[in-house]
Amino acid sequence: MPSYTADTRDMAFLLHDLFKVDASDIPGYDELDPSFTSAILEEAGKIASEVIAPLNAVGDKEGCTLENGVVRTPTGFKDAFEQLKEGGWPGLDCDPEYGGQGMPTIMGSATGEIFSSAGMAFMMYQGLTHGAYSAIHAHGTDEQKQTYLPNMVTCDWTGTMNLTEPHCGTDLGLMRTKAEPQDDGTYKISGQKIFISAGDHDMSDNVIHLVLAKIPGGPDGVKGISLFIVPKFLVNDDGSLGERNGVSVGALEEKMGIHGNATCVMNYDEATGYLLGQEHKGMRAMFTMMNEARLGVGVQGLSQAVVAYQNALDYAKDRLQGRAVTGAEYPDKPADPLIVHPDIRRSLMDQKSFVEGGRALVLWAAELIDRSHRQDDADAEGLVSLLIPVVKGFLTDKGFENAVLAQQVYGGHGYIEEWGMSQFTRDARIAMIYEGANGIQALDLVGRKLATDSGKHVMAFFDLVKSFTKEHEGNEALKADFLDPLKQGSKELQEAAMFFMQNGMKNPNHALAGSYDFMTMFGHVALGYMWARMAVAAQAALDEGTGDAAFYETKLATGRYYMKRQLPAISMHLARITSGADPVMALDAEAF
Amino acid sequence: MPSYTADTRDMAFLLHDLFKVDASDIPGYDELDPSFTSAILEEAGKIASEVIAPLNAVGDKEGCTLENGVVRTPTGFKDAFEQLKEGGWPGLDCDPEYGGQGMPTIMGSATGEIFSSAGMAFMMYQGLTHGAYSAIHAHGTDEQKQTYLPNMVTCDWTGTMNLTEPHCGTDLGLMRTKAEPQDDGTYKISGQKIFISAGDHDMSDNVIHLVLAKIPGGPDGVKGISLFIVPKFLVNDDGSLGERNGVSVGALEEKMGIHGNATCVMNYDEATGYLLGQEHKGMRAMFTMMNEARLGVGVQGLSQAVVAYQNALDYAKDRLQGRAVTGAEYPDKPADPLIVHPDIRRSLMDQKSFVEGGRALVLWAAELIDRSHRQDDADAEGLVSLLIPVVKGFLTDKGFENAVLAQQVYGGHGYIEEWGMSQFTRDARIAMIYEGANGIQALDLVGRKLATDSGKHVMAFFDLVKSFTKEHEGNEALKADFLDPLKQGSKELQEAAMFFMQNGMKNPNHALAGSYDFMTMFGHVALGYMWARMAVAAQAALDEGTGDAAFYETKLATGRYYMKRQLPAISMHLARITSGADPVMALDAEAF
Repeated sequence: MPSYTADTRDMAFLLHDLFKVDASDIPGYDELDPSFTSAILEEAGKIASEVIAPLNAVGDKEGCTLENGVVRTPTGFKDAFEQLKEGGWPGLDCDPEYGGQGMPTIMGSATGEIFSSAGMAFMMYQGLTHGAYSAIHAHGTDEQKQTYLPNMVTCDWTGTMNLTEPHCGTDLGLMRTKAEPQDDGTYKISGQKIFISAGDHDMSDNVIHLVLAKIPGGPDGVKGISLFIVPKFLVNDDGSLGERNGVSVGALEEKMGIHGNATCVMNYDEATGYLLGQEHKGMRAMFTMMNEARLGVGVQGLSQAVVAYQNALDYAKDRLQGRAVTGAEYPDKPADPLIVHPDIRRSLMDQKSFVEGGRALVLWAAELIDRSHRQDDADAEGLVSLLIPVVKGFLTDKGFENAVLAQQVYGGHGYIEEWGMSQFTRDARIAMIYEGANGIQALDLVGRKLATDSGKHVMAFFDLVKSFTKEHEGNEALKADFLDPLKQGSKELQEAAMFFMQNGMKNPNHALAGSYDFMTMFGHVALGYMWARMAVAAQAALDEGTGDAAFYETKLATGRYYMKRQLPAISMHLARITSGADPVMALDAEAF
Repeated sequence: MPSYTADTRDMAFLLHDLFKVDASDIPGYDELDPSFTSAILEEAGKIASEVIAPLNAVGDKEGCTLENGVVRTPTGFKDAFEQLKEGGWPGLDCDPEYGGQGMPTIMGSATGEIFSSAGMAFMMYQGLTHGAYSAIHAHGTDEQKQTYLPNMVTCDWTGTMNLTEPHCGTDLGLMRTKAEPQDDGTYKISGQKIFISAGDHDMSDNVIHLVLAKIPGGPDGVKGISLFIVPKFLVNDDGSLGERNGVSVGALEEKMGIHGNATCVMNYDEATGYLLGQEHKGMRAMFTMMNEARLGVGVQGLSQAVVAYQNALDYAKDRLQGRAVTGAEYPDKPADPLIVHPDIRRSLMDQKSFVEGGRALVLWAAELIDRSHRQDDADAEGLVSLLIPVVKGFLTDKGFENAVLAQQVYGGHGYIEEWGMSQFTRDARIAMIYEGANGIQALDLVGRKLATDSGKHVMAFFDLVKSFTKEHEGNEALKADFLDPLKQGSKELQEAAMFFMQNGMKNPNHALAGSYDFMTMFGHVALGYMWARMAVAAQAALDEGTGDAAFYETKLATGRYYMKRQLPAISMHLARITSGADPVMALDAEAF
């Protein structure tokens, strides 16, 4: 069975050497000194390793079951959920006004990686609750906040997001679920929603569904969609639970992975709903939480690569197979361990350099979110909105790819369920699909975010990279290995953006046919930027002689690998993009 | 539920426009005229669509079960297997002396793609039998051949290959299974083998296990391995079945996919075995079948991309979602179908251009095998031995990737099992692992095949490409789109080989650290070569005005896509390779 250990050493490097959080001007960051963050991360790592990780395979094997309309979670989930709640983890980065601990998003993301690495399906019950919490927190009336948030911050009540219907997911304008206004100001919600993660289960007293629906007579398409709070049990004025609402689980989906999470078909039959935010502004209300939600899914992709890598590494050190081509390294053993072989190294270095680079990108995005929220910084908000589709799309694509790489290290043992590597691949696969399939992330990036505020935010990104490389251009130790390839990658990314500008005006297909490649090349440039920044931080620590030289040397070597072996993908994507839309759109639909 | 239709039109193009099989000088090819090949492929397609495909999801859902030592296959498998047998399909390309139909490998590979697309797990019972048949055919005594082959050609008896043990797969030198010689010339085989596909089941009267084992006192390592025939039921002199042999199923593995195939732990307890070939030459005996076996696994990878693509295409035409960015294409419908969107096109064109290019590569490799066997052509044998690791590694890697792409077209519906797209991804995954994990294919290619006969065969490949581009250099219609990028790709592949030669001498890690990239870039060059040849054939057909112009125009457009959008990967792999071993090998094992 796989194991998991939180990489708190690497997180400490990111928080303190790279982002220097306790010296930051972001409100609340001042309390994040090394001993404080380390205490939090160690404790999270302990629960992750000891409580959550052992349940991951159990959840996969047992799955959830629907008995007489009630969803049962796998053996042990309820106990583990209680322990998570007792530790106060669900409220870590929630508003203290409603019982949260008020920590910044950067800590929520770091602990999120830890918990999700240990059990992605298990953690979704909390993750969805957090999303619903954020929506009510941002758009609810005072009364709604008082009614729902305190119990959601503790996860005594969990939450869900109801968007998809059988005939529409991405294109919500086709939605059929109806919300009929009642005289008392409530609405009667009727319709069917599918793919509702954590839609029902036996670990909380109530489930607070957030449901998108159309009020009859409103505008057509997405402009006529409103958002509603639909609790499983209505809440009495004194806060106690009242009668059962008209919402029920129609079925559980059988899925490729995340079996431990209940993916429900939800039937709404004149269920009582409460308008959240304004009429017909439901999409806007959903979008305000999009950055956090998509960052969370990016973290999921990363997390599966993290845990898969850890186990592949252990296996590569243990499993004896063949001899090093340069001569036996362990002549006293019947064979050398896998890790001596260059192609196994190639795989492990691909994984290690992705995992550490991706972790840095996540924490940077989280820092930008904190800056945008806590300092009302519109530039940070603009930059992170630009980066979010990259974080979500790139980290989930590569998270899956790296889980597949890790699985491959095990050979045939990677394919049988006993070793657990298949589960990481199967679980990671969903992150590329939900919360906006990755093609939609690419569309959001190229079709919307690039042009936002006349391209201000993408220019800001390029300026950041430029001023960084300029600032360190005298650093001869890092120039050839880090700064030059980053500069080149950033230049090629600008060329791609320029191609879109020049050709997309004539025909938007020229931009959209290259959108996926652009997202991926942006991901590589972003990770290249992270690696270059990490290299500067590691080099500085080495120069200062602060100790732990081995850690910093390893960091530099891992970064060199990423720059040498991953950044060459950038030119490939540029070539694909500049071939334009014609090869892509050449065929009539009938000719396929 | 997914459906499958054999692409017999494309196969006819390959057999007759491209390879012109009935004009070939390979013995037996003369009977492959278009009406004959079409009759075979249509009939195979019919059984595939009507009999095998409907069982694919059943097999996945039910899996195999072990009851009192007996393996039960999923509902319907036995009937379908009978129909396959009645049609004579298992013996299609087997020796007529033992009841086969004597058709060339090129027809076996074409029908193999068809059958495996319809049901990969189901077809493995026949596929493994074919492998065992080939081994006995190549190395058996006349008596062994008479005893086993007639029943294996019909699949009345099926076969297996027993290599892997719990502690060793790739490194068979560590093997522990023992074969004690007996006075009567037989051996007593004892040990445990794992991951034995089709190890036991209820669809045949006997199972003929081919087992690698060590005769005590023989040389150490792989040089002391011998190959044995170990039938489940011993065969009496009159050919009837005798007593049960000492071989039993210890367990069935739970796997990520191919649930319809019984993956067995096989226990040998003083089972009677008959030496196949010479003592201690078991590895060599296995290797002589390697080309066909690995071609077959390459076909499996391709086949899952084929069927996944077909279904993704149907879905993209049916599912309404959003509007074309250039204006509604179906204004009378509530939304346009997915296929109008450039990023969906990008995905479908990736799939289509891979599937058709991969199919051409498979049939070319099969033609080379036929040439090597039927004409004793050592050059063809050398060339196909070089290509086989590429066919196996590249087609299974890309087959899986393309299955993932197809699954992605379905959005959330791709993740739930109901739609069947998850199964293609899960089933395709194994092909990257078994019959030599793809890292081993890369090692075989770079560490062995490149240098075989002083590099003669890789030079022959480059010469083929060169003389092809030279022959057609006057073809202005194809020059920029096909010939120039192929030339460039081939040049870069040579540069990579040159890098290995120049640096691998000093340190073999410089070659092996780039082996996987080399395999992948070779795959792209090989598919580029196939596409250029297909373009010439399609252009010729258009020039001759033989009709079906739409087919040939589509072929050219699909090829242009591959050249524009896939060949740019070649430069990326070259850059990775020429960065050498240092970034890969920089860390001590403890530093990871």
